[in-house]
Amino acid sequence: MLRKILVIGAGKSTSYLLDYFLNKAEEENLFLTIGELNPKVISESIKSHPSCNVFKLDIFNDKERRKAIQESNIVVSMLPARFHIKVATDCVAFGKDLVTASYVSEELKTLDAEAKEKGIVLMNEIGVDPGIDHMSAMQIIDTIREKGGKILLFESFTGGLVAPESDNNLWNYKFTWNPRNVVLAGQGGAAKFIQEGTYKYIPYHKLFRRTEFLDIKGYGSFEGYANRDSLKYREAYGLQDALTLYRGTMRRVGFSKAWNMFVQLGMTDDSYTIENSEGMSYREYTNSFLPYSPTDSVELKLRHYLKIDQDDIMWGKLLELNIFDPDKTIRLKNATPAQILQQILEDSWTLADDDKDMIVMYHKFGYKMGNKKYQIDANMVVIGESSTHTAMAKTVGLPVAIATLLILNKKITATGVQIPIEKAIYEPILSELATYGIRFNEYEVPYFGYNPDLVVR
Amino acid sequence: MLRKILVIGAGKSTSYLLDYFLNKAEEENLFLTIGELNPKVISESIKSHPSCNVFKLDIFNDKERRKAIQESNIVVSMLPARFHIKVATDCVAFGKDLVTASYVSEELKTLDAEAKEKGIVLMNEIGVDPGIDHMSAMQIIDTIREKGGKILLFESFTGGLVAPESDNNLWNYKFTWNPRNVVLAGQGGAAKFIQEGTYKYIPYHKLFRRTEFLDIKGYGSFEGYANRDSLKYREAYGLQDALTLYRGTMRRVGFSKAWNMFVQLGMTDDSYTIENSEGMSYREYTNSFLPYSPTDSVELKLRHYLKIDQDDIMWGKLLELNIFDPDKTIRLKNATPAQILQQILEDSWTLADDDKDMIVMYHKFGYKMGNKKYQIDANMVVIGESSTHTAMAKTVGLPVAIATLLILNKKITATGVQIPIEKAIYEPILSELATYGIRFNEYEVPYFGYNPDLVVR
Repeated sequence: MLRKILVIGAGKSTSYLLDYFLNKAEEENLFLTIGELNPKVISESIKSHPSCNVFKLDIFNDKERRKAIQESNIVVSMLPARFHIKVATDCVAFGKDLVTASYVSEELKTLDAEAKEKGIVLMNEIGVDPGIDHMSAMQIIDTIREKGGKILLFESFTGGLVAPESDNNLWNYKFTWNPRNVVLAGQGGAAKFIQEGTYKYIPYHKLFRRTEFLDIKGYGSFEGYANRDSLKYREAYGLQDALTLYRGTMRRVGFSKAWNMFVQLGMTDDSYTIENSEGMSYREYTNSFLPYSPTDSVELKLRHYLKIDQDDIMWGKLLELNIFDPDKTIRLKNATPAQILQQILEDSWTLADDDKDMIVMYHKFGYKMGNKKYQIDANMVVIGESSTHTAMAKTVGLPVAIATLLILNKKITATGVQIPIEKAIYEPILSELATYGIRFNEYEVPYFGYNPDLVVR
Repeated sequence: MLRKILVIGAGKSTSYLLDYFLNKAEEENLFLTIGELNPKVISESIKSHPSCNVFKLDIFNDKERRKAIQESNIVVSMLPARFHIKVATDCVAFGKDLVTASYVSEELKTLDAEAKEKGIVLMNEIGVDPGIDHMSAMQIIDTIREKGGKILLFESFTGGLVAPESDNNLWNYKFTWNPRNVVLAGQGGAAKFIQEGTYKYIPYHKLFRRTEFLDIKGYGSFEGYANRDSLKYREAYGLQDALTLYRGTMRRVGFSKAWNMFVQLGMTDDSYTIENSEGMSYREYTNSFLPYSPTDSVELKLRHYLKIDQDDIMWGKLLELNIFDPDKTIRLKNATPAQILQQILEDSWTLADDDKDMIVMYHKFGYKMGNKKYQIDANMVVIGESSTHTAMAKTVGLPVAIATLLILNKKITATGVQIPIEKAIYEPILSELATYGIRFNEYEVPYFGYNPDLVVR
């Protein structure tokens, strides 16, 4: 019998997902239905595939959305996270399994009991971050536990970056995902984590000055800055007794120090609008964060304010973005500083058609066994293949696709609201991901505790 | 006929207010009624005065509050600002004038039309800041305009400080008013102002590094940091065409640079709680904002993080507050970093019984007349007399008291929601304040525009 998979939303990051289903369509007896508000974004090769049907779907049209869900065997929602709840509610009502790559919202959690009653699964956080991070971390944590080890330290970092071959600016960065999230990263409260049993807090304006360095064999050096809440999965991972818990975002070394210039100036602020922003030059925008002077240039004022030497590479990074340009103008009305900064950065950091992206992930696991302490570092690098088949689309889409088929084939039988932290879920997914080149390298390293500089007392 | 004045709330800063009414009671035929939740706070000399009656008033008791208001001829509310609306609503209902020292709230504004209809005034912002700042500034602005001058620049600064004779700590600061407001000062959004026709924005984490210096003859040097919204009174003062508008808070030079250490560390954050705060030592609190180190002391980590040399006076300022003390402990449960900082500062910055406070105010007025540009600087210093008769109580209470009597005597006849920016209001009040030693010194200085360093091009 033909099994019908409904994918809602076919924007960025669905290329590998759709390919996976269509490549398996014959062998697995699948039929793919894609509901998308703007079907034009879907490539011809997909639309014309015999096992695929594309239709225009406005998810606010309750009748059409419900009909499509009712007619399917399983649903994949690739919509922006805030819309999942509509789809999930219908899935529970009609008894259909659902897979998403997004964080479990408080709203979604409330569907857990009813989903269990209906015997269906609402599987979430099964993209790359969250997703591959959960699965790869839990695989190593469970292995350590099976050997009798007790976890002392867990650190985990992920980054969406530009591939080395396309890395041609001073920031070693281009936008490979939602630029707005990059501009607003770290805002909304102090970062909180634990180091050697002590709670630590970093305010936003210091976040990008408290980085940790990470090396990946063959790919050089990276840095990580703290995510807002490193304690989020403490219970889920069973790490209540770990002395160090730290989750962060990876960038190339030097990015954070340079990004901090924007933070210090106030350019990342999204809480107020600049009324006369439209038509303002980049130079005027920059000057609005600096004191008035009857004599000094915007350049000199900024260098003095941020204490940047003229031969500092930080200065080159600013010049590269044209923030002192008197001729380039802002195209946004009543925009916030953050929205304007995003426009300026998009001028320089948009991926070219032949640019490739890269996903990097780095975990550290410190543990005790008997009287001895050990550490395992594990890391993963995935390079994009093209501007449509990006590393982001691959690492988000493949785990979602694999999980969907496993659920359909009753290889995953969990019910209710789930994230992929159980062995029965992550094991088959990680095995199959490895066949696509998504795999971790593990290294045994000496255990120093939280001691990134490896200082000997 | 005896005129009945009802004062609601007799906490801090009402000493001069109450004295004023009682001193004039006979001559002006006044009877003072004081409604206070906790009558114990009122001194015996006031309670036993023949022209005074004190009664316990819970302002949430609608019946009693209304009865007291109905029986009075005029009402003065010295309650916390958020409670004025209850009193104001009753005043409008019963047709009684009201005087407060607080900012006009949006809620209060809605009573304007009805108050006008009833022929009563709701007079607000008539303490020191807001209050004396409005009146003194408008007096000079109106004088300049009467001469045919056009205002180009207006800057205004106020500070509540410790008097020079009681100034005996490295911060040159003690709490003379609500400590919580001092700890949270500047939070809640970027500071916004205009310099030479250009809008300027300062994020919170840079606010205390963008100060301006001010000298007051006989009192030495001060500094000012920007208030959040310097444009608040632009329309009210008629300064729509001014090129520079800046309102700020005054401190002794060096306070802001040192305060910035707390901001940088994240100690002023009021947005999250530290769960295990009770019983934590001051040293542990400080350490929670610093990276873990297996080897380095809290002191060295902080010095390195904030780049403080060992012989820098900034370091002495931190030591003076005992923030590295392993024995002093936090007495607050689940407190925010800001609440804990407040406790630590209160240990050191609470006024002693024989300490005196000081209010300073500094205005700058730049203007053009014919083809020439001029500037007037005006400043005021008021020193407290004792721990009850503080400069704060004097500068807040006297304008309120004087305005109350002027309204009662029909010398002020404005109606509706008012702030003291009209000549008919400020002129008699400022004249009488001068007899109490509350007066401004004016200086003609060269006009440089916004150019605090007086740089010659």
